[in-house]
Amino acid sequence: MSAASFDSMWADLDPVGRAGSGGYRRFAWTAEDHTLREWFAGECARRGLDLTEDRVGNQWGWWWDGPGTVDEAVAAGRKAVVIGSHLDSVPDGGAFDGPLGVVSSLAAVDRLRAAGVRPAAPVAVTNFVDEEGARFGIACAGSRVLTGQLDRDRALGLTDADGVSMAEALRAAGRDPDAYGPDAEALARVGSFVELHVEQGRALVDLGAPVAVASDIWPHGRWRFDFPGEANHAGTTRLVDRRDAMLGYADLVLGARHVATQRGCVATVGKVRVTPGGVNAIPSHVTGWLDARGADEDQVIAMVDELTARGQEMGATVTRESWTPTTRFDAGLSERLRRVLDSAAGVSAPVLGTGAGHDAGILATAGVPSAMLFVRNPTGVSHSPEEHAEADDCHAGVEALAACVRDLTAAPA
Amino acid sequence: MSAASFDSMWADLDPVGRAGSGGYRRFAWTAEDHTLREWFAGECARRGLDLTEDRVGNQWGWWWDGPGTVDEAVAAGRKAVVIGSHLDSVPDGGAFDGPLGVVSSLAAVDRLRAAGVRPAAPVAVTNFVDEEGARFGIACAGSRVLTGQLDRDRALGLTDADGVSMAEALRAAGRDPDAYGPDAEALARVGSFVELHVEQGRALVDLGAPVAVASDIWPHGRWRFDFPGEANHAGTTRLVDRRDAMLGYADLVLGARHVATQRGCVATVGKVRVTPGGVNAIPSHVTGWLDARGADEDQVIAMVDELTARGQEMGATVTRESWTPTTRFDAGLSERLRRVLDSAAGVSAPVLGTGAGHDAGILATAGVPSAMLFVRNPTGVSHSPEEHAEADDCHAGVEALAACVRDLTAAPA
Repeated sequence: MSAASFDSMWADLDPVGRAGSGGYRRFAWTAEDHTLREWFAGECARRGLDLTEDRVGNQWGWWWDGPGTVDEAVAAGRKAVVIGSHLDSVPDGGAFDGPLGVVSSLAAVDRLRAAGVRPAAPVAVTNFVDEEGARFGIACAGSRVLTGQLDRDRALGLTDADGVSMAEALRAAGRDPDAYGPDAEALARVGSFVELHVEQGRALVDLGAPVAVASDIWPHGRWRFDFPGEANHAGTTRLVDRRDAMLGYADLVLGARHVATQRGCVATVGKVRVTPGGVNAIPSHVTGWLDARGADEDQVIAMVDELTARGQEMGATVTRESWTPTTRFDAGLSERLRRVLDSAAGVSAPVLGTGAGHDAGILATAGVPSAMLFVRNPTGVSHSPEEHAEADDCHAGVEALAACVRDLTAAPA
Repeated sequence: MSAASFDSMWADLDPVGRAGSGGYRRFAWTAEDHTLREWFAGECARRGLDLTEDRVGNQWGWWWDGPGTVDEAVAAGRKAVVIGSHLDSVPDGGAFDGPLGVVSSLAAVDRLRAAGVRPAAPVAVTNFVDEEGARFGIACAGSRVLTGQLDRDRALGLTDADGVSMAEALRAAGRDPDAYGPDAEALARVGSFVELHVEQGRALVDLGAPVAVASDIWPHGRWRFDFPGEANHAGTTRLVDRRDAMLGYADLVLGARHVATQRGCVATVGKVRVTPGGVNAIPSHVTGWLDARGADEDQVIAMVDELTARGQEMGATVTRESWTPTTRFDAGLSERLRRVLDSAAGVSAPVLGTGAGHDAGILATAGVPSAMLFVRNPTGVSHSPEEHAEADDCHAGVEALAACVRDLTAAPA
């Protein structure tokens, strides 16, 4: 029954925001995002889940049959067990990153209800907005603003590639930017947050397990490198007279790979903006973005310091746009989930670290007991149309998540 | 009188298409381009010059007081003396590249009329469309299609950064793409073409001369390098598992500078497109454009061969988008202009080669006797808001151009 409901929802989402390339383009506060939010509201309505929105626009679908209201239950010490993820995507992203967690959470509710479970604490399914930061450049913007980890004024002033600010995007989506901001009241309802996510990497294939529990999120951050140059004609300017901003950028790209290899980290330069950007004009300004991560926080910091010094030698101004130190998920909660999975499956669930940031990490940093489940990805590919999970593993994920919710709501964590 | 008319026209054009950066964005078949074309038509009307358009949309303002029509004069062996340039710009270009030639040509007509000159052959002032190729990627598209050097179907199929084809852009500008194409009839009227242009480089400062005559245009071309990769997550994909298209691109940028230095050429990578282009996604495809030029054709070809081999080693597909061998202007016409300038100024006019392509070069290749005049640029900067010519030098350019037209129309070349 939950497998059927999972498959049906999955089929509904398949075409939304799918580009000709086969990849998804589901960016915050766009028409595609609106369609996804309407879809989420419809699924909640179909299940009789009460839909609320916090001041950021994150959606919450509540399953609580009482006694009393959700807030009365919370006041009485029965804080909510929250499950969910996000529906937005990176440019040309895959189908699973985000939606797998949302769809699995709704299916897990179906699974528990079909089994006649009546939770002793409220359950909410969430759709966090703007997790990927594809449009405005800051990942997990929805949970960061919710928890006060990203200043609401700074967030509202962020601009997309067309120069549209987040405030303008909110207004265009029919929302009031003045109401946008942190929401302690919404956050106070959360007793624990469990985010199910497609694995990003291919550890579970070798381990022979469909579902894992997360240990921690690697430290990670984004840095903007602005290289100055001088616009001039590509045909008439002698090489010795040039100040070509592209040369420093190219050095950053190759340097990032070199230093990351040396230090056992990962470093990526995946986005660049060139001014003026004409074939026959020497670049007067090039901006490149460095994404840096690694298991060892000291090595990541040392790598970025080294690349910063190298960029500065080429004249660059280096700006840290975001930085998240190592995030450790709640040890008690993670261990409890691992035991639930072990007893449900009869084998020991693997525990994996991850190089990707998640809303669960933001909530963990905000002091909310949080944990994650990963569902096996046979390709290991992520942020690409190639990312995948087999249907059987998706269904196993729903079962695992339902078992966790059942355990947590039987005796709230 | 011609100085005053020059200054007044120059002031009129100053704000059109000027961006906040101070640079100009005047791209083919945009609203800015439309304003410039209307301005040109208005200046022709004000002077009683008959406006015609060829099948490409290049504008021609005719000064011919008879006997008979322009076509009758041409049929009688009195082919037209044509002067002019273009009004479009590169992204964030300067004010002079193009407009200086058009404004100087109109002012030269004023100068000759004020002196009571009555030409023995028709004179036309032209505004060539889409010289910079900033929107659709091929420079001198207006003169290339006019002369059949660029296939009209290929031109119509070119797309801009938003995916709009030239055919669609023409339609949006109220024009009929079916009528677009080479125009042998328009070309047959041209007896000689003289394009005045701001100097691109700073040779004339050292030579102490305000105006030079061109000798030749360096061989030049554009090549597109397509580097393949595999989209994946920037945080979760091990370095050894990556196929990052940005690495090959960075190698091209640094390689181009290195090989150009070795071979005494110039090479520029000023434009890049990244797919998917997210900060946290490994690039699955990067396209870079190489602009290559030099005084020595063999060295330019050898440089491109070397960079092509290097790119192919990184997996790139290399496509030649355009190539123009050394263009020699008409020797007789150039020598005649040099003598006119010498006798007008009393000093010997310098003769300069140039690394930039021009409509005059396209017409020369098509067999039209063509020549160019360069007006001193004290900064030497080009394709940038910093490009400049002093007012006195601009006025000297108008005088020089008027003297050339007077000489050529007294006894047509």
